[in-house]
Amino acid sequence: MHAYRTHTCGELRKEHVGQQVRLSGWVHRKRDHGNLLFVDLRDHYGLTQCVTDVSSDQFKILEGVRVESVITITGEVVARTGDTVNPNLPSGEIELRVRDVTVQSRADVLPLQVAGVQDAGEDTRLRYRFLDLRRDKVHSNMILRSQVISTLRKRMLDQGFTEFQTPILTASSPEGARDFLVPSRLNPGTFYALPQAPQQFKQLLMVAGFDRYFQIAPCFRDEDSRADRSPGEFYQLDFEMSFVTQEDVFQTIEPVLHGLFTDFANGKAVSPMPFVRIPYDESMLKYGSDKPDLRNPLIIADVTEAFRASGFGIFARGVEAGSVVRAIPAPGAAGRPRGWYDKLNEWAREEGQGGLGYIQFAEDGPKGPIAKNLEADRVQAIKDACGLKDGDSVMFVCDKELKAAKFAGKVRERVCDDLDLREKDIFKFCWTVDFPMYELNEDTGQVEFSHNPFSMPQGGMDALLNQDPLTIKAYQYDIVCNGIELSSGAIRNHLPEIMYKAFEIAGYGPEVVEEKFGGMLNAFKFGAPPHGGAAPGIDRMVMLLADEPNIREVILFPMNGQAQDLMMGAPGHVTDRQLKELHIKLDLPKKVEVSKG
Amino acid sequence: MHAYRTHTCGELRKEHVGQQVRLSGWVHRKRDHGNLLFVDLRDHYGLTQCVTDVSSDQFKILEGVRVESVITITGEVVARTGDTVNPNLPSGEIELRVRDVTVQSRADVLPLQVAGVQDAGEDTRLRYRFLDLRRDKVHSNMILRSQVISTLRKRMLDQGFTEFQTPILTASSPEGARDFLVPSRLNPGTFYALPQAPQQFKQLLMVAGFDRYFQIAPCFRDEDSRADRSPGEFYQLDFEMSFVTQEDVFQTIEPVLHGLFTDFANGKAVSPMPFVRIPYDESMLKYGSDKPDLRNPLIIADVTEAFRASGFGIFARGVEAGSVVRAIPAPGAAGRPRGWYDKLNEWAREEGQGGLGYIQFAEDGPKGPIAKNLEADRVQAIKDACGLKDGDSVMFVCDKELKAAKFAGKVRERVCDDLDLREKDIFKFCWTVDFPMYELNEDTGQVEFSHNPFSMPQGGMDALLNQDPLTIKAYQYDIVCNGIELSSGAIRNHLPEIMYKAFEIAGYGPEVVEEKFGGMLNAFKFGAPPHGGAAPGIDRMVMLLADEPNIREVILFPMNGQAQDLMMGAPGHVTDRQLKELHIKLDLPKKVEVSKG
Repeated sequence: MHAYRTHTCGELRKEHVGQQVRLSGWVHRKRDHGNLLFVDLRDHYGLTQCVTDVSSDQFKILEGVRVESVITITGEVVARTGDTVNPNLPSGEIELRVRDVTVQSRADVLPLQVAGVQDAGEDTRLRYRFLDLRRDKVHSNMILRSQVISTLRKRMLDQGFTEFQTPILTASSPEGARDFLVPSRLNPGTFYALPQAPQQFKQLLMVAGFDRYFQIAPCFRDEDSRADRSPGEFYQLDFEMSFVTQEDVFQTIEPVLHGLFTDFANGKAVSPMPFVRIPYDESMLKYGSDKPDLRNPLIIADVTEAFRASGFGIFARGVEAGSVVRAIPAPGAAGRPRGWYDKLNEWAREEGQGGLGYIQFAEDGPKGPIAKNLEADRVQAIKDACGLKDGDSVMFVCDKELKAAKFAGKVRERVCDDLDLREKDIFKFCWTVDFPMYELNEDTGQVEFSHNPFSMPQGGMDALLNQDPLTIKAYQYDIVCNGIELSSGAIRNHLPEIMYKAFEIAGYGPEVVEEKFGGMLNAFKFGAPPHGGAAPGIDRMVMLLADEPNIREVILFPMNGQAQDLMMGAPGHVTDRQLKELHIKLDLPKKVEVSKG
Repeated sequence: MHAYRTHTCGELRKEHVGQQVRLSGWVHRKRDHGNLLFVDLRDHYGLTQCVTDVSSDQFKILEGVRVESVITITGEVVARTGDTVNPNLPSGEIELRVRDVTVQSRADVLPLQVAGVQDAGEDTRLRYRFLDLRRDKVHSNMILRSQVISTLRKRMLDQGFTEFQTPILTASSPEGARDFLVPSRLNPGTFYALPQAPQQFKQLLMVAGFDRYFQIAPCFRDEDSRADRSPGEFYQLDFEMSFVTQEDVFQTIEPVLHGLFTDFANGKAVSPMPFVRIPYDESMLKYGSDKPDLRNPLIIADVTEAFRASGFGIFARGVEAGSVVRAIPAPGAAGRPRGWYDKLNEWAREEGQGGLGYIQFAEDGPKGPIAKNLEADRVQAIKDACGLKDGDSVMFVCDKELKAAKFAGKVRERVCDDLDLREKDIFKFCWTVDFPMYELNEDTGQVEFSHNPFSMPQGGMDALLNQDPLTIKAYQYDIVCNGIELSSGAIRNHLPEIMYKAFEIAGYGPEVVEEKFGGMLNAFKFGAPPHGGAAPGIDRMVMLLADEPNIREVILFPMNGQAQDLMMGAPGHVTDRQLKELHIKLDLPKKVEVSKG
């Protein structure tokens, strides 16, 4: 018989009754019924109930071990009878009658409970992550994460992609976040950077002729932590393809994401393919965001004209001065009490707006301060424009276009939540497309890149030479699920002359391009294919699938908010000799030096 | 028709003849036959010959582009006839008659040639790695690497392992090489370390109950480069299993390695399973190494007794003083000229030995200085012990046991090469097992760990308490292929009390264990399963399979010997602001400061 187990704790069934078996695992629960002692033995695969009675010399051994100790139990599989059968447990038709117990490892008193759903504080959970990971939900989140990655890999391979590992010790990349730096021992005074993303490498792979690359890529950004951003490292499904149009990229990656979400939807629906493509301008208008949550049914309308030179003076003057008015429907809200509107108004002020205008389309006619002042035909025009009926309300935002759009987007979300309108149990995908290449910095009057300077402008060199820069769109896109941006992506600019010109428009001379992006630019001079890709965030996809709002719940050994690993003691102090070898010394903040002196 | 391609350059066959198609790729070669211009168009998938004649307005365009430019060609597939068919090219039965050419990206004059086998200098190759990677052998090495990793993953999943990503920003680990350090911005004066291996994490995963873990794990060691070691990062197939004996580990991983090597053996044979298990002591005796190359048929024998108190004074006195004598057969070498023996003797002196004794078993009797002085029955005993026949020779090494063993191992390799005895076209695997737990430091007289302090001693606590430490074996093993150590591994010591005792024997108090390995030790106090694993090196396996002696040939973007990435300019200089944020300043070597002042 094997030293530790003949079966796993999830394996025994009725057909094993009568067999002598051996199981190893953790003592999950103990129930002492006086003469009988029940032990639920747990391993990665499941749970098996073991039982011994007081007449056995093994009784005392089992009585003496704490929960979470590791033991090996040898004994006979017996059938449970009648109401002792546990239909909720795969092994619930049998139990193991203990013949022999070996204690493999004794557990101390636990700092957090593994069985049950009691939650410990975050500090304790992270410090004792090896215990926290034994808990059912955390354990299954990690398995889900592993399965998600495994499925993504398989689907990418099936689509003809090849996985490569790109360097982790590399140079600073142009993603724009803060780099983690690694001092070089062999090259005094210089530093490696950990990659914020393998952006340049994947483009170099295309230049090298590898056609379809992907990687489950570790990425590193020294940014402060948020609920959806772990400090330090995160993973993305990084991919790039050659000789493709934007539509090719969509058609290639949609089946991967659709397949993944369908596999792990756990009863939820997934948008059918092809996913909706929404131009940026339309998305900003209708959803007030470039990452619309399509589970929210509300559609924003532009009603600027209804207020131009109208009787509602505040908006009329605003429109006169170049503002726009956006209308957010609130279906069925006409009967809501005054307090609800007041609360929204107050919230709008907290958000830096003057307030939140509205009209209630009551059974007996339009109501509220705006309806009082706005001409009846204009009120009707708004009702029509928004597709409203009696019983509905509508909210208004009047501001300069971008600000109005963004705040209308917030109102849309807020109203949706208040009215409980969000579609449930579905993953709704869309592509946001046609992002503007440039935007105007209103403070400086300077034209700036609005997103990624390395995307190909639509219309190419011709557009750069002959079009108002603010009207140029880029082959840049976002993939969005339930209002969460999984990734941006682009067809890249692979032509040095277009890159120089694109930077020139944004006020950068060729020397800047060459200094900052020389490696890639140089490569493009030796035959570069048209190419494009994206990099959906793995952690975010797992968060969506596991329905976890905090990223730490889907990472094996996450750091805390102060970027510390409490279990391993990272980051930690190092020796003077190590610093010397790396040609650096500490340069501590003054107060620390003072407190030492 | 698609903007870039209807087919890949490796796809067109006779059945496509007559079709209008579009291909995109790199201009691999151009052959100008006066009226006809042939272009071999290359992409990731293959090569297609395209042809145009001088009457076409596209002729001039093709004539004008340099090799390695990226172009799109539209035209008609036509059958090649008679001797223009190229049987060596999958698309060799057809060619593409050019109708239209679009130049996607022009190539400058190349710093290295892509077509052909001409090798550029390493500096040029690494600086223009994106071009170097287009070359056939390099390209296929990278594809091989990707396939190896993909196959390993599939095989590990099939064996019930789950892949997890462990942290890359972490604490210093006890592997003992030099760490790469990452200064923490949020925790002034402290540093993360990049993992030398995920050793502690994988053991923590076992403590967390995950049963079978693996990872294609990036590992980081700040060591100087060698032919088989890239500076910076490398990858290993890291795995760990719970509730297993050493034999379970072997039986689980052998099919993975055997399967991998069989898949990519390219006509070579692979050792049948189960791989030979060779105890460390036996391996040191018979092969003079703990990583024997079993393609070498020579077996070393101990012939100490044949020389004890014998007529060959030097060895007799050595044996008297505690040395041993090892005999290395040299089959068929008796007839070799004196010069060969002299050369070996000289080499032995260079290696720090007194020389290399030998006996030639010539047809007319034993020959050489030793045979002259050693009694005939002793000479015969040696001949028998080594299984020699007339025509063979034998070499002798006389030294203290470990030194003798190691040098005998070198002689065994040298003789094998000189006599061209190494078996060809085979991957020969073995496990080295039963490594000693401790060894004696001859300088200090102190008992020290001989390999890994975290392996479980055979016999457990009982052995530690009651056995001479130098006789204790560990459950530690190496997997070796063709003399190359792919990995060491072990059944781990999961019991704190045995760990404390094991360290005590090596002279370390509990405070040392707690300070250096507190994280793992702490975890073992809350229920740890018996567990073990290993971590075969990916780069080394790919080197073996690609038959490449230099590791840089199997890495996508390797650094050079000075740990620099010439293409990306890593490591590079950073700004004072970056250093300030990280609470460090430079501490450059004196001469650099002087040269600046």
